[in-house]
Amino acid sequence: MTELDRLREPIADASPALWAALSPLGRRVAFPPDIPFQAAEARGMRYNGTIGQITDGAGRPLALPAVAEALALEQAASDRALLYSPVQGILEVRAAWRRWQRRGVDRALPSSQPLVTVGLTHGLALAADLFGGEGRAIVVPAPFWGNYRQTFGVRTGARIVTAPAYRDGTYNPLAIPEALAGEPAGAPAVAILNLPSNPGGYMPTTSERSALLTGLLAEAERRPLVVLCDDAYAGLVYEAEAPARSLFWDLIGRHPQLVPVKIDGGTKEFSFFGGRVGFLTFPFEPASKIAQALESKVKCLVRAVVGSPVATSQVLLHQALMAPDVEEQVEAVRRRLGRRYLVLREALQSVDSGLMRPLPFNAGCFALLELASGLDPEALRQRLLARHDTGVISIQPSYVRIAFCSVKADDLPELVERLARGAREGRVR
Amino acid sequence: MTELDRLREPIADASPALWAALSPLGRRVAFPPDIPFQAAEARGMRYNGTIGQITDGAGRPLALPAVAEALALEQAASDRALLYSPVQGILEVRAAWRRWQRRGVDRALPSSQPLVTVGLTHGLALAADLFGGEGRAIVVPAPFWGNYRQTFGVRTGARIVTAPAYRDGTYNPLAIPEALAGEPAGAPAVAILNLPSNPGGYMPTTSERSALLTGLLAEAERRPLVVLCDDAYAGLVYEAEAPARSLFWDLIGRHPQLVPVKIDGGTKEFSFFGGRVGFLTFPFEPASKIAQALESKVKCLVRAVVGSPVATSQVLLHQALMAPDVEEQVEAVRRRLGRRYLVLREALQSVDSGLMRPLPFNAGCFALLELASGLDPEALRQRLLARHDTGVISIQPSYVRIAFCSVKADDLPELVERLARGAREGRVR
Repeated sequence: MTELDRLREPIADASPALWAALSPLGRRVAFPPDIPFQAAEARGMRYNGTIGQITDGAGRPLALPAVAEALALEQAASDRALLYSPVQGILEVRAAWRRWQRRGVDRALPSSQPLVTVGLTHGLALAADLFGGEGRAIVVPAPFWGNYRQTFGVRTGARIVTAPAYRDGTYNPLAIPEALAGEPAGAPAVAILNLPSNPGGYMPTTSERSALLTGLLAEAERRPLVVLCDDAYAGLVYEAEAPARSLFWDLIGRHPQLVPVKIDGGTKEFSFFGGRVGFLTFPFEPASKIAQALESKVKCLVRAVVGSPVATSQVLLHQALMAPDVEEQVEAVRRRLGRRYLVLREALQSVDSGLMRPLPFNAGCFALLELASGLDPEALRQRLLARHDTGVISIQPSYVRIAFCSVKADDLPELVERLARGAREGRVR
Repeated sequence: MTELDRLREPIADASPALWAALSPLGRRVAFPPDIPFQAAEARGMRYNGTIGQITDGAGRPLALPAVAEALALEQAASDRALLYSPVQGILEVRAAWRRWQRRGVDRALPSSQPLVTVGLTHGLALAADLFGGEGRAIVVPAPFWGNYRQTFGVRTGARIVTAPAYRDGTYNPLAIPEALAGEPAGAPAVAILNLPSNPGGYMPTTSERSALLTGLLAEAERRPLVVLCDDAYAGLVYEAEAPARSLFWDLIGRHPQLVPVKIDGGTKEFSFFGGRVGFLTFPFEPASKIAQALESKVKCLVRAVVGSPVATSQVLLHQALMAPDVEEQVEAVRRRLGRRYLVLREALQSVDSGLMRPLPFNAGCFALLELASGLDPEALRQRLLARHDTGVISIQPSYVRIAFCSVKADDLPELVERLARGAREGRVR
């Protein structure tokens, strides 16, 4: 039996839908029994000449002083930051992140030991390799984060299929089922659930959430459906009407044809953008055969593309996860963004609705504005740069995104004022 | 004219061979004009609401104290370590690495501003995306680092084509031309030049180097040939007979059909394994149109797979590059490995040649041993683990690799002794 056959059985047995949804590449990858595999077997040997990393011969790095001195860490943590991480990530970091993910989650809900990725995007790219591929439908409400196009479409040949995230200025919880309506029954599909959303800055209310879940479950009747929960903005929710909990937990075990996958990380939630620590989590118990088989596949892809994830940043994130006041540290950032959110919402109320209207937002890092017809978002962006010393993101066909996460609360009213001025000038011509 | 057409012309004009060698994916990627592009345009604006990273609104991170306190860096460097890196890498790091690469190199030889990758493997994966693809011949002397198979073959569908790196226990500088002999003329091919080598630990002598260069230039007569210089072990050379300089510099501008690409990084050369900082460098001037077009393609792939490279590790590597005694710090590690090399070479001289013979080695992190016929390397590895508390890497069909970079000099004679004992026991059965 080949290594690939060994991986097929545990996956196809435990979740035929997941096996059906794997791409050709996803089917053929398996962690090879070469150097990291053999090095893992040799761990703890008195004489260990397996691994090509430079050490003192007793497991400690021969770091350059200039590098080691830049880390204010205890010896053991510093050593770990400078040596290779295991391909799946450092065990303690994975375990600590799993505890963080599962705060308040029912113990009965299964979830794997998270696999460490190079930032959240890398988790998406791994999911794209596993579940994308030529012609596969990737459904996502529009407007969406443009990089999905590169990660899924350009690289793997998958098709992005969309439906409107908003109708008449209101959030549309059925965008994914609507996008799937034109896809043939039986054909596996992938849905991206990015909540809180980018560029929308929106988290569904309790009733919208319920409609969304019902819609996804109905679609799973018609086809194997992999739901990628892109939890980039996890926790950043500013209104009590919207539960902050990840949709991932609500989707586990709800339908045999629906496989949720959680993609999250320290980037936004721990405000650690430069570190590139993300995680990929499957809805299966860590010790289960299917979790182990999927881990082998992901490890093959991680090794093939980046060798191993960043040890340095994992150790830094671990410092935060182990801080006794970690929840307060994370909450302090959320509160600060929450204040900006309130100021921005207030400032947007004064904007002439003949120029643009803010779409509902209550979460994340962004507010999305829909321009009145006749106003081109790219022309507006260029005008704001050229004449108003102001930068925003334009999204075709009719949107402008404001990242309030990187603007002072006191600056937001003036930013909105300049935006409106730029739009008025565009209207005049 | 589309963005893709804009990129075709500068590449096909300056190097028709490079354009011919691009994979279908390599041809279709171009850095999209979305968020990072628009954010770059907005840099310096008084009001900048473009980018989804959490800051104080004046460009500084809202880092968690637990993360920021783990870095012993000045304020500005610490801030930079915690925020997103540009997709192409931090400018000062790229410039400093370029100066490091070009020590002693003729000013007339062109080389691009290095693009930052997530460790050296990511540089290889980017080259695989650009130049691999279904059926493309990737030629490499055997035995080779097994991960090339995943990076080029499993992921992109390229074919690994090999020829023996050693003949009768001697280094074979013509392995790549020999491997190419069976490939049709005119069909573009990729060659991997991994010197100092893994698993061989070998750097060619002056005369072997000259034969190797002549052989590559002759092959470029027959086809577009991309030569990937995998300089993972750059600088780690222990014998004066072997020039340490990268082959990349010797290949630039030598033949219009030969395109060398340099892939290197801080991993081994700066003993910074956990940091994952690699670089990808093309043989063209930074300001040239072809360098800019290739940069756009690489940035698209970096953004699609990891978002952006690791800022934290770039800042740490930059600390080392800026240290006044950086050359001595790097040299101290090389000298320490050089002592182990001498001890290991000496210890291997006593091994019964009826059991195994060391292949020539003079560089890098490894020694490679060829087992006598009848001895299976995997069985030997298992026996060493089970009975001799010793770990080595087995490579089919007949090799064992010792990583002396992670073993104390004093331990090496005993490691060799146990290896020989294990082999004798295997022979007896």
